[in-house]
Amino acid sequence: MENESFKNIVERKSEVEWTKSLPSISIDCVVFGFNAGALKVLLLKIKDQDLWSLPGGYVGKQEDIDAAAKRILFQRSGAQNIFLQQFGVFAELNRSEGFFAEFEDTLWHKQRFVSLGFYALVDFTDVIPVVDDVSSDIEWRDIDDIPALMMDHRKIFDEALLTLRRQLNYKPIGYNLLQEEFTMPELQRLYEIILDKKLNRGNFYRKMIAYDILDKMDEPRKAGGAHKAPNLYKFNTEKYQAALENGLKEGW
Amino acid sequence: MENESFKNIVERKSEVEWTKSLPSISIDCVVFGFNAGALKVLLLKIKDQDLWSLPGGYVGKQEDIDAAAKRILFQRSGAQNIFLQQFGVFAELNRSEGFFAEFEDTLWHKQRFVSLGFYALVDFTDVIPVVDDVSSDIEWRDIDDIPALMMDHRKIFDEALLTLRRQLNYKPIGYNLLQEEFTMPELQRLYEIILDKKLNRGNFYRKMIAYDILDKMDEPRKAGGAHKAPNLYKFNTEKYQAALENGLKEGW
Repeated sequence: MENESFKNIVERKSEVEWTKSLPSISIDCVVFGFNAGALKVLLLKIKDQDLWSLPGGYVGKQEDIDAAAKRILFQRSGAQNIFLQQFGVFAELNRSEGFFAEFEDTLWHKQRFVSLGFYALVDFTDVIPVVDDVSSDIEWRDIDDIPALMMDHRKIFDEALLTLRRQLNYKPIGYNLLQEEFTMPELQRLYEIILDKKLNRGNFYRKMIAYDILDKMDEPRKAGGAHKAPNLYKFNTEKYQAALENGLKEGW
Repeated sequence: MENESFKNIVERKSEVEWTKSLPSISIDCVVFGFNAGALKVLLLKIKDQDLWSLPGGYVGKQEDIDAAAKRILFQRSGAQNIFLQQFGVFAELNRSEGFFAEFEDTLWHKQRFVSLGFYALVDFTDVIPVVDDVSSDIEWRDIDDIPALMMDHRKIFDEALLTLRRQLNYKPIGYNLLQEEFTMPELQRLYEIILDKKLNRGNFYRKMIAYDILDKMDEPRKAGGAHKAPNLYKFNTEKYQAALENGLKEGW
């Protein structure tokens, strides 16, 4: 049924959702991908339309919401083993009515849904997205080049980006996005790309050391030429895990 | 019907909720009260039971969720004009089944609900709580003296407190909790009570100034005796508002 229209597919899915899903609650996933100095987001192009969407879906009547977010992301993008965090609630009245205007009012998708936003930050070279049946394309899009998104998905994306940036003040990032051993400038570069601004080198160093999540290696990286070999660090797995759960030291 | 049992009241309310409320979504409010060095939380004692609860309820089918949170808080506590912020989602399977075990399975309250947590921080002398019909008592309880709470309300409270503390790193607090003009030690004391720890005076001063939300008054507070008159500050309303919306300067 490769040529089945978007409308047909949605109407067919509506019947299934009415029987198996929890009413009023939906999930949308904002998956940020970082690699080699670029910050991207995973988007689906909707079949038959000039609109893109976040990977989203519904929750089973007896399904855990974290499990639902993982399942939805997998079904809609093929992406697996991604740690998704819930970050916001999108509940404006009539947020889906306009998009589904040409459908019957009994369509599942046209009911009132409060959407739970989930986000993740991954190395995008680890994820090979696969297009699903309601989409004609799936892409990692640069965050400076976001196409028109359906419904309130632009707002969900903006809020996720704000959350990611704000989170840098109380939770660490970097594990899985850098080599096991890295230099302080490499870690700083990661922060700079996510925050989209230059950081002061001295301040960054002091703050990161105060967070107490890094171990300094005995041996610096071997450097060629006349340059001083840069110090190498790695995340102290135990402290990093504690900081992910309880927040960073420092702050107030 | 002052002596109507908790069970009867809930069964009566169940019928109303089935017709007017959105399925699957509930709201719980954590209202923190600050005054004179104490941090408290607003709790209701459930009628006929040795359990307390947060003020909570359901969302109208066409009701905005922020409006619903305000209405629920007012109906259950009499508290008005409180700025509630959504902070978390509580979605564990069967979170209400145990509490409503002795009721029929068709009871509205016994269905699966994902609860949206809202929290606020107010001056508790501004709020005179009024007990509602499913409660036998309503009190401002010290956060170090929380009684047994129904369902997952302890978890909701803990998460709200963590959010309040974490928020101090990226959003300002204090407006409405202090006199219009205050000294830096008074502001520091507010932070210390919320964080439940002593802060370094110099660091606090530098960080607060870097946030750029305070105006220093020309005249210091008149002090009696030999002490130096302390400097007075007030919130710069415009900058304070911007920081509430966009976060504090500084950070990374």
